[in-house]
Amino acid sequence: MKQTTNKLGEFDLIARITSGLTLGSEVRVGAGDDCAVVDVGVPDRELLLKTDSVVEGIHFERSAGFERVGRKAMGRALSDVAAMGGRASSALITLGLPTHHTVEEVDALYAGLRSMAGAHGVSIVGGETTRNPERYLISVSVVGWVAKGKAVLRSGARVGDAIFVSGELGGAMAGRHLDFEPRLVEAGWLVAHFDVHAMMDLSDGLAGDLRHILRQSGVGAELLGRAIPTSREARLRGREGDAAKPPLLAALTDGEDFELVFTVSPKDAVRVLDGWKQRFPDVNLSCVGRILEEPGLRIRDERGVRDLEVHGYDHFEKS
Amino acid sequence: MKQTTNKLGEFDLIARITSGLTLGSEVRVGAGDDCAVVDVGVPDRELLLKTDSVVEGIHFERSAGFERVGRKAMGRALSDVAAMGGRASSALITLGLPTHHTVEEVDALYAGLRSMAGAHGVSIVGGETTRNPERYLISVSVVGWVAKGKAVLRSGARVGDAIFVSGELGGAMAGRHLDFEPRLVEAGWLVAHFDVHAMMDLSDGLAGDLRHILRQSGVGAELLGRAIPTSREARLRGREGDAAKPPLLAALTDGEDFELVFTVSPKDAVRVLDGWKQRFPDVNLSCVGRILEEPGLRIRDERGVRDLEVHGYDHFEKS
Repeated sequence: MKQTTNKLGEFDLIARITSGLTLGSEVRVGAGDDCAVVDVGVPDRELLLKTDSVVEGIHFERSAGFERVGRKAMGRALSDVAAMGGRASSALITLGLPTHHTVEEVDALYAGLRSMAGAHGVSIVGGETTRNPERYLISVSVVGWVAKGKAVLRSGARVGDAIFVSGELGGAMAGRHLDFEPRLVEAGWLVAHFDVHAMMDLSDGLAGDLRHILRQSGVGAELLGRAIPTSREARLRGREGDAAKPPLLAALTDGEDFELVFTVSPKDAVRVLDGWKQRFPDVNLSCVGRILEEPGLRIRDERGVRDLEVHGYDHFEKS
Repeated sequence: MKQTTNKLGEFDLIARITSGLTLGSEVRVGAGDDCAVVDVGVPDRELLLKTDSVVEGIHFERSAGFERVGRKAMGRALSDVAAMGGRASSALITLGLPTHHTVEEVDALYAGLRSMAGAHGVSIVGGETTRNPERYLISVSVVGWVAKGKAVLRSGARVGDAIFVSGELGGAMAGRHLDFEPRLVEAGWLVAHFDVHAMMDLSDGLAGDLRHILRQSGVGAELLGRAIPTSREARLRGREGDAAKPPLLAALTDGEDFELVFTVSPKDAVRVLDGWKQRFPDVNLSCVGRILEEPGLRIRDERGVRDLEVHGYDHFEKS
């Protein structure tokens, strides 16, 4: 019987695809982190490369408004550059155009792409349109930079590290997923002032995404349930009768937060919190747990410590 | 009444989209050439950026075989790097997966992508899968390099230049469009040995693509009908009864050739031809015409000189 990816799962498919790739010696980090890192022979910097796409009916509906969709499409890729501690420079756009579209929609989409790019000093240097008869598809490729050897990887978490999360989590699909700001400024400030061991952006939910850091770093973690910042939307949804999902579960498993999760040495934790509050008074920062030697992800709440069974959002298997 | 792009045309839409873009000072060439050129502060080189995609049912059918589709998807983007006189380094893949797909198809697709990338020293450093329920969509973003200030643009053609075309043109859709080799080696040799004034790769047919060089260089051209190299497929098709299309018309207007068109000073023309024949005995090179001051594209055949009315293949308006 032929396997389809719906059974195989998104991450297994990506693992299967990427395992066969051979990389040139200039590639410092290939597939498997937020961005690829390529040494291009510049004395002080390395290149960051990332591609990310949004598809009508999967990641957005037309009713969202095309300017917001454009902002989201660009913001997602920029969020990955932020997660490496880098700076974004240039972007390329691939636009799949459905048979039913209007020039006004395309104009609005590009207004959103331009607005998000411009706010972060990114030039849209090229792109392509192609037909994709049934739905819009917008793919954004971003080129960025990071100081040589300073890219913050998923694999750098160390036993004892404090785990931090920016913003508030959960319920982003109620609207926030279209209006987030990629944390480029915040991440740039972090890496300029602290030795950030591991970092990534949250797109599939903290419970799922943090596992990438744990697996790639060869460590485990314990989260503190009451320290996890739940968004207003997640808390409101917790009261909605049949559709109710406990706010903590939403914060752990809802996707599309586009916040940062990162780890630093425990001796830096208080300085990070204090410095962040002073520099970014309007953006929440929470210490949500710590890195432990024992593999696996556990959560501590009023009932004690238990394994966290819930996973993040898998784009091929909505749970 | 709302305009759709089918009425507006692909090139008008791209012009509309790109006219509103603001570029940072590091961008030497933005949208509108085969690749974008970005000055990244390296003393001797500049960055080339390109994105290109193929869509099931538009650019290929599943019956073509997925390995060939993968090779084509990668080859198209590499062909654009060749057209700048550059070298390709890294690639990112966006894979839109339809609901009906198999792991075997995806494996074969990646085998093709890897094989074409590997043959040209290109590392696939990352990518993404997303759902695109009705059809496969493969978008390839390539990063490359060119010696500083040496990117060969579409805008460099000068009055008097000889116009050259590599390979044989027309009828590529009969199969060759899936099996072409991007002319990276040939273009690299050309720019290393000659002052190439303007170059691009042929994707929409010589009659259409050459007009980009003419418009961006502010010149015109005269082609010599009998000098235009027609492919075997184009000549065969010319005999096929109702479906017949004169081979010269096919060579001028069929898309997907992925050959090079370039111009050099007339004093270099013979040396280019002789050197090419020695270096690439298996690849045709034809001098097909010359650059003139008077705008427009004309063709000289047994009936004299006349304006070339036929256009290249526009992906939104098949003619």
